[in-house]
Amino acid sequence: MKILIIGSGNVATVLARLIYQFPAHKLLGIVARNQSNGRMLASAVNTDFFELNDQPLPKADLTILTTSDEPLTKFEPHIFDSTNLLVHTAGAVSKDVLKKYSANYGVLYPLQSLRKEVDYIPEIPFLIDSNSVKNTNLLIEFCSSIKSASEETNDEKRLAMHTAAVVVSNFTNHLYALANTFCDNRGLNFNMLHPLIMETAARLNYASPSSLQTGPAIRKDIVTIKNHLTVLDNHPRLKEIYALLTQSILGN
Amino acid sequence: MKILIIGSGNVATVLARLIYQFPAHKLLGIVARNQSNGRMLASAVNTDFFELNDQPLPKADLTILTTSDEPLTKFEPHIFDSTNLLVHTAGAVSKDVLKKYSANYGVLYPLQSLRKEVDYIPEIPFLIDSNSVKNTNLLIEFCSSIKSASEETNDEKRLAMHTAAVVVSNFTNHLYALANTFCDNRGLNFNMLHPLIMETAARLNYASPSSLQTGPAIRKDIVTIKNHLTVLDNHPRLKEIYALLTQSILGN
Repeated sequence: MKILIIGSGNVATVLARLIYQFPAHKLLGIVARNQSNGRMLASAVNTDFFELNDQPLPKADLTILTTSDEPLTKFEPHIFDSTNLLVHTAGAVSKDVLKKYSANYGVLYPLQSLRKEVDYIPEIPFLIDSNSVKNTNLLIEFCSSIKSASEETNDEKRLAMHTAAVVVSNFTNHLYALANTFCDNRGLNFNMLHPLIMETAARLNYASPSSLQTGPAIRKDIVTIKNHLTVLDNHPRLKEIYALLTQSILGN
Repeated sequence: MKILIIGSGNVATVLARLIYQFPAHKLLGIVARNQSNGRMLASAVNTDFFELNDQPLPKADLTILTTSDEPLTKFEPHIFDSTNLLVHTAGAVSKDVLKKYSANYGVLYPLQSLRKEVDYIPEIPFLIDSNSVKNTNLLIEFCSSIKSASEETNDEKRLAMHTAAVVVSNFTNHLYALANTFCDNRGLNFNMLHPLIMETAARLNYASPSSLQTGPAIRKDIVTIKNHLTVLDNHPRLKEIYALLTQSILGN
C-alpha cells in the first residue's frame, strides 16, 4: 500500500517507524508543518518531506492524518485531493470531520500511548471505522499486514474506549507520578516499586483485575488505612485521592 | 541457610517457591494453622509440614513469619524458641512486635504483590530491617543469595513505602477494575487495553512518570474532558474519580 503520513509528532513518528518495517508498504512521504521534525522523521524512514502547501502531494492509497485533535478541521481541502482513503488517528473525534476532505474517510485510532523518544515500538491495537464496508475492510487488512490487532468501533464506542484508556493509562501514570514525588520527599527509592508496578499490569493476562485486588481496603484493614492517611498528611492531594479510591474499593 | 516458614498463604507460598529454587538454602518446614494449605505447600517445596502446636520445631537460622498483619502478636512465644532470627513480612507493622518472641528479630518485607495462583515468581525487592547490624547483614546476604534486591528501611520509611505501594498497585488495579466494568457495560473489549496498560508500566524504565504524562488533562483539552465526563454519566463513582484525578493532573 502507498501511504502518506501527515504530521511529525508522537503518533506520526511511531506509525511511520512501524509501517517502515513492512516492505509490503511504501511510505510516500511525511507532510508536516514543523519542517525540522518533519525532515528528521522523513529521513529516519527513508522517504520524502513535504510542506503542507506543497502541490501536488503524491497519490496515496492511504493518508494518515495524525495531527492533534483540534486542527483536524482546519486544513485546505485540496491537500487530500490525491488520496484514496483518508483517516485520522484521534480517539475522541468523529470520523465525519473528514467528510469535507474526501469521499473515502475513516479512523485508524491507535489504542496505545505513543512517545517518539521511546526506542522500541509497543504492541498497538487499532480501533477502526470508515464510511464504507470496502474502506473498513481495507483498514482491517492494513492492520493485519502490520501485525496489529484491530476492532471496528463507531464514534460513540471509540469515545467510550478513549475514556477507559485515559483511566487505565493517564490516571495510572499520574498515580505513579504522585507516588514518585512522595518517595522523593521521603528519601525513598521510587525505582524499588518498578517490579510491583510491572507485575500489577502483567498479571491481567492471567485474571480479571477485580479478582486480583489486594491491599488494606479490600481486606477492610481500617488500622492500616488510617496509618497511611496519617503518612500522607503533608500530601493533601494524594491524601484526597487515597481516601476516594479507598472508599471506592471498600464499596462505599 | 536453614529456613522455616510460618504460614501457607500468598506470601508463604511464593517465598517458599522462590527459596526452593536455591539449593544453598534448606527449607526445614512449613508451619501453618491451615492443615490443607500447609500440607500442600510443604509437599510442593519438598519439605515437612508442622502444626502450630507441634513441639519442638526444627532449629532454624531464619524463621519467616508470613501470617497476616493482625495475628502477629498472638503466637505462643515458645514457637520461636529454636530460631536464630525471626522476621515478619508486613509493610505496615513495626519490627518491635517480634521483640517478645526472640532476641534476634527483624523484617523481610517483599515489595511485591504476591498471589499463589500466579505460576511464575515475579521479581521481588525486599525492604529489610532488624535489631542489630549483624542480623541486618544476614538479611542483606540472604536477599542477595536469592538474587533479589534489598534496601534497609526502618519502620517509618517502610510504612511510607507501603503507602506508596498501595498507590501504585492497589489503586492502579482498582482503576483497571473500574475500567473493566465500564467496558463490559458498553460492550467494549477490555483486553484491547492490555498493551496500553503494559506499556504505561514498562516505560517507567526509560523516564520518570511526570515526564511521560499524556492525555486530555495534561493537554488542558477541556472539550475532550467534558465529553468523557458525559460518557461516564451512568458510572458516578468512576466519574468522581475521573474528575478528581483530572483536577490533580491539571494542577488545580
